[in-house]
Amino acid sequence: MISFQSDYICGAHPEILKRFAETNMECLPGYGSDVYCERAAEKIKKAIGKDVQVEFLVGGTQTNAVVISTMLADHEGVVAAKSGHISVHEAGAIEYNGHEVLTIGQKNGKINAEELDKYIADFYADESYEHMTFPGMVYISHPTEYGTLYTKAELMKISEVCRKYDIPLYMDGARLGYGLMSQDTDVSLQDIADLCDVFYIGGTKVGALCGEAVVFTRGNKPKHFLTSVKKRGALLAKGRVLGIQFDTLFTDDLYFKISRHAIDMAEKLKSIIRAHGIEFYIDSPTNQQFIVLENRMMERLAGEVAFNVWERIDDKHSVIRLATSWSTTEEDLRALDEILQ
Amino acid sequence: MISFQSDYICGAHPEILKRFAETNMECLPGYGSDVYCERAAEKIKKAIGKDVQVEFLVGGTQTNAVVISTMLADHEGVVAAKSGHISVHEAGAIEYNGHEVLTIGQKNGKINAEELDKYIADFYADESYEHMTFPGMVYISHPTEYGTLYTKAELMKISEVCRKYDIPLYMDGARLGYGLMSQDTDVSLQDIADLCDVFYIGGTKVGALCGEAVVFTRGNKPKHFLTSVKKRGALLAKGRVLGIQFDTLFTDDLYFKISRHAIDMAEKLKSIIRAHGIEFYIDSPTNQQFIVLENRMMERLAGEVAFNVWERIDDKHSVIRLATSWSTTEEDLRALDEILQ
Amino acid sequence: MISFQSDYICGAHPEILKRFAETNMECLPGYGSDVYCERAAEKIKKAIGKDVQVEFLVGGTQTNAVVISTMLADHEGVVAAKSGHISVHEAGAIEYNGHEVLTIGQKNGKINAEELDKYIADFYADESYEHMTFPGMVYISHPTEYGTLYTKAELMKISEVCRKYDIPLYMDGARLGYGLMSQDTDVSLQDIADLCDVFYIGGTKVGALCGEAVVFTRGNKPKHFLTSVKKRGALLAKGRVLGIQFDTLFTDDLYFKISRHAIDMAEKLKSIIRAHGIEFYIDSPTNQQFIVLENRMMERLAGEVAFNVWERIDDKHSVIRLATSWSTTEEDLRALDEILQ
Amino acid sequence: MISFQSDYICGAHPEILKRFAETNMECLPGYGSDVYCERAAEKIKKAIGKDVQVEFLVGGTQTNAVVISTMLADHEGVVAAKSGHISVHEAGAIEYNGHEVLTIGQKNGKINAEELDKYIADFYADESYEHMTFPGMVYISHPTEYGTLYTKAELMKISEVCRKYDIPLYMDGARLGYGLMSQDTDVSLQDIADLCDVFYIGGTKVGALCGEAVVFTRGNKPKHFLTSVKKRGALLAKGRVLGIQFDTLFTDDLYFKISRHAIDMAEKLKSIIRAHGIEFYIDSPTNQQFIVLENRMMERLAGEVAFNVWERIDDKHSVIRLATSWSTTEEDLRALDEILQ
Repeated sequence: MISFQSDYICGAHPEILKRFAETNMECLPGYGSDVYCERAAEKIKKAIGKDVQVEFLVGGTQTNAVVISTMLADHEGVVAAKSGHISVHEAGAIEYNGHEVLTIGQKNGKINAEELDKYIADFYADESYEHMTFPGMVYISHPTEYGTLYTKAELMKISEVCRKYDIPLYMDGARLGYGLMSQDTDVSLQDIADLCDVFYIGGTKVGALCGEAVVFTRGNKPKHFLTSVKKRGALLAKGRVLGIQFDTLFTDDLYFKISRHAIDMAEKLKSIIRAHGIEFYIDSPTNQQFIVLENRMMERLAGEVAFNVWERIDDKHSVIRLATSWSTTEEDLRALDEILQ
Repeated sequence: MISFQSDYICGAHPEILKRFAETNMECLPGYGSDVYCERAAEKIKKAIGKDVQVEFLVGGTQTNAVVISTMLADHEGVVAAKSGHISVHEAGAIEYNGHEVLTIGQKNGKINAEELDKYIADFYADESYEHMTFPGMVYISHPTEYGTLYTKAELMKISEVCRKYDIPLYMDGARLGYGLMSQDTDVSLQDIADLCDVFYIGGTKVGALCGEAVVFTRGNKPKHFLTSVKKRGALLAKGRVLGIQFDTLFTDDLYFKISRHAIDMAEKLKSIIRAHGIEFYIDSPTNQQFIVLENRMMERLAGEVAFNVWERIDDKHSVIRLATSWSTTEEDLRALDEILQ
Repeated sequence: MISFQSDYICGAHPEILKRFAETNMECLPGYGSDVYCERAAEKIKKAIGKDVQVEFLVGGTQTNAVVISTMLADHEGVVAAKSGHISVHEAGAIEYNGHEVLTIGQKNGKINAEELDKYIADFYADESYEHMTFPGMVYISHPTEYGTLYTKAELMKISEVCRKYDIPLYMDGARLGYGLMSQDTDVSLQDIADLCDVFYIGGTKVGALCGEAVVFTRGNKPKHFLTSVKKRGALLAKGRVLGIQFDTLFTDDLYFKISRHAIDMAEKLKSIIRAHGIEFYIDSPTNQQFIVLENRMMERLAGEVAFNVWERIDDKHSVIRLATSWSTTEEDLRALDEILQ
Repeated sequence: MISFQSDYICGAHPEILKRFAETNMECLPGYGSDVYCERAAEKIKKAIGKDVQVEFLVGGTQTNAVVISTMLADHEGVVAAKSGHISVHEAGAIEYNGHEVLTIGQKNGKINAEELDKYIADFYADESYEHMTFPGMVYISHPTEYGTLYTKAELMKISEVCRKYDIPLYMDGARLGYGLMSQDTDVSLQDIADLCDVFYIGGTKVGALCGEAVVFTRGNKPKHFLTSVKKRGALLAKGRVLGIQFDTLFTDDLYFKISRHAIDMAEKLKSIIRAHGIEFYIDSPTNQQFIVLENRMMERLAGEVAFNVWERIDDKHSVIRLATSWSTTEEDLRALDEILQ
């Protein structure tokens, strides 16, 4: 059975395993103070072209919870799209850390700068705003949960609103590589570092066993961050596990190459889908594709392909998600093409 | 200047102050173990006609936070209308206690049983529901934040949905008296005790200096509730302050009489509003009235009457709230009538 | 039956009830923005002789939890005596707000500046201090839980240690009046405001129905404090209840006069105890007296006097606490004297 | 430079890396639902010989925080030795999850059943116990933070106290393998499963890159544990990373063999220490050895050997920790022996 279920169905890119083996018997200090974490951070800084602060965490929900709860003030919450990962699929992790997620509307997973501005302006215009959670940060995902991307112009406008109200813009980049390597984007890693106050470069979904690299772009890493990470049970004893992976991913552009591969595979996947006359639910320029199937067709497919059921549209139709990744092969695509005959 | 700003603008009903004076030098044990708390609980049980458990807390947000966070399991959140007090005006108190507020749609402040049922059914139908906050309680306010009331039939349906999914129904009764004494309700205190698993009888907004009486209707008071209350900084040393107030309010139906007075005042207020051709924003059968004013008119009024600005409708119009209470007088109404000339 | 059980066994000082009655029908805004809160704050500032910030909260545990958790940074905890109220008798309220209480030794309820200094120095000398909770505040109670008092010299030294490490000194003044009016103190209210960064003037145990006045002495009130208070369910709708009480207590030195009365009663109580040859467990210069009784004697007493059992010393002896307050009378003392015959 | 700094200085046991490579391209579902997690759980059950519930988490502090906070009731805290890892070196993680750590005395890192019993009995004997955090769980580490071990008789007594008060006994087994393979223990894995309600088998410090296996021994895994894990940011997307490691460790007794190797190395280390006339700070039968050095000697050593400074004894002496592990070699020992000449 072939799988397009997600971008974390395989282990790690083989180069990572190779580096684990090569470095395995080196004695290194723990908790992120090893040379590989240092090198990985240096390489990420170089890729960004800016003297940012880089920290490594294990997973996406953890990263969102740690970053958001250490950067918000007590009276603040985080503004996010209703469809945002933190709003829906993190089991209330932000709330568990004591902060409200303030949801606003979305279109194809994206928030809109004007709506955001109005939301915050309305907040401060409200007589009783002191009895409400202050908007203290803006969260966006890029690519979004629907695989869509912000344009540079859109990001600039959102960033401007954040500047206006002096609150940080945070980008969840769980699938950042796929966004950066999309054929339909004008947003570079440098742009993101310029426009966001903090973001993370996703590893788990882009070839690592686990790991996300948080980037603070304005010297704004919370004081004693390590202690706050530890307090949240998020500090890895063998920090090298994260360091070696990101060092490898940011050596010889591996992160970008494997992301590009996934995008190429996604483009071919789209051609196959189109050729079979199947409807797209959304126009996604990244590695996640959402298509509409009759339930009967979906059930038939389920016997031969692994995928995610995204949404029931009506009694007869559903939306499913097919995801490519660094590990997707031409064979996978050919097999899918045949199954769809 | 007359005030219709809220139902907590005056001190306490004079009978309460009288009782404070009469009992002042009695030596009583602390933390709610005094005879007045006991009597108040007994009288509330009698008014309800059921062997419920009664606990006293100081304020509304505190009560919501304590009740919700002690009754929810770790993986659960509370379902509420987007306009619910806990969703908007409690500065994230529920989230601070570690739980998500799961918002659903509302009409005039009320949720709908069918939508609620669909929301929960959809939750369990979602492939990835284990990654989401479970709906573990339903919160309604009665009267709602818009002064509206559920009908008995509506409450029965909502209660039925809660039974179906085996989750408690919690009613925020900050203004319960005004709901019970409305001319347009078929819901009695007994109905509420039958249909809800827990609710509170609001004191702060119905003649007390402070205080809310929480009623657990199914022997379902969380174990060691006093310790949980203490842990949340909500345990009053001089518990008598709450006991004496509720003992007084539930002696000779005082709670109901003063609520009825506020309703009578509200009905007269409505006649005056209507007579002046002013538009109602919403049809409220309780003590809170929402009316639409031109901003110029609103500003003129603001010099002579205290009220709350509820919402800006457009550049020229706003909604304001006028509230009556136990302390509203015929003179207040006459004065308003004249001002509106 | 006479009662020396605690200093919160009666209602409020009659003057407070009188003022409640006099102001009862005044229409006032909510949440602490009324004129009485303002006046009370002004009078407290005047009593202190310094332009401090004053906020009112309802109870002691609540005050400790709110102040400590809004002033600590994420990675910090609060240092306190093992016998401190927050360490023992607040059901884990500080921890519930996400912060560790770091306990150090005590003698008669007091911590020692040298030990405190060593504790913090040792913390920073530890190789792995980043994996531990940082000492971010020092908590002391004055009077302590044993009724004892810091001398001015002791307070100065503790304050100096706090300055050295740049962390705030917080004084829990639940019974502050009794400390200030003790015959054996050289510590004035002005000293406290000079030496502490934040402290509270207890109302609940010194003649109020409820209420504590928090004093921030260095312009260091946390930003948007009201919202943080609301978020913790600690914001009183009828803020006047607190304002009127503290306005009354700080008019014509009432707070000090009634504290002095309690001290006078305590001195007489001590004479009676001494006259009956009963052993003091501790030498307390304030309103709480701890005495050692044979259990048989204690049981006999229990039928006629209300008190607190503090500690079992051995199989045959116990420590009990007798507390005087503003409401203690000469008759109470005479009755006790007779019972002890 | 050789290193005895800790038991997590190297990568993973080579067999684990080999299995990562072999399984790398298998498409597996996420979040712990893969076949390797299943197999690992089965093998652990078999090793224990009991139908327990097994869950995998990433690190030690995380595991302690998740297990303790999901098993405690709201009003409860966890009793632990003052020297326990959760009491000192987890940056307040338990408190961050809302629960107090109730510390009792220790000897060589171990608590004593009698003292524990007295602590709990005293708690319930206290008049005001409802105002205090209830002892709701007992935490022990085995081996302790000092490398020492409980005897079976000691564990039985502690377990008995937990039975008496009906609270769970939780064992932190971060270094469990080293405890089980010690030459001086009469405690087997089966004993632990019989006597504890929950414990974890440490992976991070016993040959894994990361990972701990939590064992619930009485069908007492909290309901919807996965959601609670997610809510705490502790759910690993590629659960296989944990499954493959524990599957490998529990195949052909690898976990026990490598633990035994570390113990053999520790015994040889002890002989070397002894031969050089160096004083042991504590008599440890496991892989952590604590020795007393003159500071001058310590500083000289520091240039050639990596170790942890544990404690300053006086101005001239310090305690250092030397740890062996699965990766310690005879060469390391020989080198140390020479350095100590």
